[in-house]
Amino acid sequence: MPRSLCSSLTRALDEVVTVEGWIHRRRQLATVTFVVIRDRSGFAQVVVTDPAIRAQAAALPEETVVRVTGALVASEKAPGGVEIIDPMITALGAPAGRQPVELWRPTLSATLPTVLDHAALTWRHPARRAVWTIAAAALAGFRGHLDGIGFTEVATPKIVAQSSESGANAFPLDYFGTPAYLAQSPQLYKQILVGVFERVYEVGPVFRAEPHDTARHLSEYLSLDVEFGFIDDHRDVLALLRDTLAVMIGRIGDTAGGAVETLGVELPRVPEAIPVVHFAEALELVGADPAEPDLAPEHERALGKWAQAEFGSDFLAVEGYPAAKRPFYTHPQPGDPRWTNSFDLLFRGLELVTGGQRLHRHADYLAALAARGERPEQYSSYLEAMAHGMPPHGGFAIGLERLIARLLRADNIRYAALFPRDIHRIQP
Amino acid sequence: MPRSLCSSLTRALDEVVTVEGWIHRRRQLATVTFVVIRDRSGFAQVVVTDPAIRAQAAALPEETVVRVTGALVASEKAPGGVEIIDPMITALGAPAGRQPVELWRPTLSATLPTVLDHAALTWRHPARRAVWTIAAAALAGFRGHLDGIGFTEVATPKIVAQSSESGANAFPLDYFGTPAYLAQSPQLYKQILVGVFERVYEVGPVFRAEPHDTARHLSEYLSLDVEFGFIDDHRDVLALLRDTLAVMIGRIGDTAGGAVETLGVELPRVPEAIPVVHFAEALELVGADPAEPDLAPEHERALGKWAQAEFGSDFLAVEGYPAAKRPFYTHPQPGDPRWTNSFDLLFRGLELVTGGQRLHRHADYLAALAARGERPEQYSSYLEAMAHGMPPHGGFAIGLERLIARLLRADNIRYAALFPRDIHRIQP
Repeated sequence: MPRSLCSSLTRALDEVVTVEGWIHRRRQLATVTFVVIRDRSGFAQVVVTDPAIRAQAAALPEETVVRVTGALVASEKAPGGVEIIDPMITALGAPAGRQPVELWRPTLSATLPTVLDHAALTWRHPARRAVWTIAAAALAGFRGHLDGIGFTEVATPKIVAQSSESGANAFPLDYFGTPAYLAQSPQLYKQILVGVFERVYEVGPVFRAEPHDTARHLSEYLSLDVEFGFIDDHRDVLALLRDTLAVMIGRIGDTAGGAVETLGVELPRVPEAIPVVHFAEALELVGADPAEPDLAPEHERALGKWAQAEFGSDFLAVEGYPAAKRPFYTHPQPGDPRWTNSFDLLFRGLELVTGGQRLHRHADYLAALAARGERPEQYSSYLEAMAHGMPPHGGFAIGLERLIARLLRADNIRYAALFPRDIHRIQP
Repeated sequence: MPRSLCSSLTRALDEVVTVEGWIHRRRQLATVTFVVIRDRSGFAQVVVTDPAIRAQAAALPEETVVRVTGALVASEKAPGGVEIIDPMITALGAPAGRQPVELWRPTLSATLPTVLDHAALTWRHPARRAVWTIAAAALAGFRGHLDGIGFTEVATPKIVAQSSESGANAFPLDYFGTPAYLAQSPQLYKQILVGVFERVYEVGPVFRAEPHDTARHLSEYLSLDVEFGFIDDHRDVLALLRDTLAVMIGRIGDTAGGAVETLGVELPRVPEAIPVVHFAEALELVGADPAEPDLAPEHERALGKWAQAEFGSDFLAVEGYPAAKRPFYTHPQPGDPRWTNSFDLLFRGLELVTGGQRLHRHADYLAALAARGERPEQYSSYLEAMAHGMPPHGGFAIGLERLIARLLRADNIRYAALFPRDIHRIQP
């Protein structure tokens, strides 16, 4: 008979049903055995009283994959208000040994290294699984919003001839005898493609040979990249970022509500307009030296508190970052080229997104590269796009794992990656 | 005034409108200048008669980015039945020189190397752009179908400690002093994740150090990976593949109709059930030696013709591939372990998709690895998933560029990649 998902069982009350899944928990009492089945949708309780079936169940430890057919009855005490009685149980896949962690406990009590070392198992725990369920909902919201407003999804190469920002932190590679790198970002390609599609996005891995071992960096992560043309300035980019985040967070609430509840996540409200502060003013607010070229993590935290106190907002955009700290393609602030038309978005006091307006005139690129002592030949394809008519454009990049970690108030970004990569970890 | 897209102009007849885009074509006649504007949605014709504006337009070559405001009037001769008259033109971005290819010509007459070398420009040509528009629609259809039937999107690492199939064709990498590889496929990870989510898919780059220079291989391509549990056998996998392809092709027709028309693409009909032939029978059909372990390209072509003649189908599945030619995780054919529960899907006589049922019992994995002389320690995380209860499962992988190239009857897969990578090419 066709399989029912655990979450849809209530529709089949008093019928014979079949569920398939993992034995999440087995409790053998004096005269009854309770078996909780876990499938992709949720849980179902099976009540076994027949001595022969109880003996069979006694040989099926947790994580055995089973098919269970039985009568569905109402039960006030069972999760979901129903349980399966008088079951027939078929084992489909048996564990070869005892699990190194107890997946059936409400809380996964294991250290971060254990959680990561045994990722193949620990992701099965409902509280771990909920993390990625939220991440997947965020991805769907990101694409859904952009697809609806004329964006084209693109896929740009991850093996590149030159690094997009600077040589630092790029993984080198031998490409059929030619030196190559893993792409640190799709920046140059997404700009080229604005010349083709006007509005593009990409969801793909980016690679940073991060020499630091911190709680907020990974050496491979999923970058949600957006770039689009015909903007006035970086404020248009921030407005699109605001709408995109609002849809992503809305989608999490709509389609991953169970996961949000499992983790007790407090989803942020995205204000209609994200408050903006200029970099120079931000330094003043946190009492930093006005000559500081960047915000330190403690500055970001202080600004996050300030945005919360001043605007009741989890989000704050800091615009006008000093040109010296931004890549060559960053558009200067009109009238004062010490600053730029770029911003960082802080979420709960942590940098989450970098965005801004880019240069779009060929001559401006040549000047910007010359000023940095870089050779234009290194960027010939990129400059070819700029040499043949580009609209004013800009964009942003969201690091998925960082967004999710921050949403969950996780103290380490590694909790939000399926199989994280860092300076010490390449397994599993 | 707010910008209108070229494609939506007809709604604003007799109003003043603003369009923004590239000057696709400029024709200067004795008393009138025609300017065709190209934006992401299509084209609009602008008619200039005022001598001052004509003089201005004379200084704006093709590919200049402009904003044009003028009165929209009906015109039988203009594309779309409307044109903009009495325009004001503002240049937003000027080309720095003449284009190396003429983008305004209906056909892009350039050799493949020129098309690829100047990808930053040649993708702007409507006939090139249409190719990727179709690819993007296929991606949206892929995700849309799977999202609707309980699949979870996942993102697995591209830097891995061991190659998933064999060491051949993997790009090696120095990972902070540890030897690593670029992932040839997400195979092992997607199987692990069946243990978590039951049904998973991933769209991501895969890397093959292809030593051959052929018209059908790339060294980096976009793999559309699917894996799911609780199947009976590989026929369930083929059925899901069939439905997924049908939705992808349907989506192309629905949302990329203009691109389909531009390219004159004949979209295939996906039969309700894709015809299946056993590998042994396939060899017989093409008159090959029954001891052949694989199908040669000419065999695939002959089988494609046979499927067309016999079933009127562009698709044919060949099942039962010899175990010797399949990876260790392939499930044998019950009753005859010379063959496997795996298949290739041929599309118009070319291998497009490989899929099948995998082993799911831990003991079977240990035996399969031992039979191939491989050490289980190399696969410890993967085997951990198998050791703790896995359902019968299987999946498939579609190479996006190969699918698109074949749909378009392009003679080289490089036409279907935005920025292709091969043994000779890492630029742009």
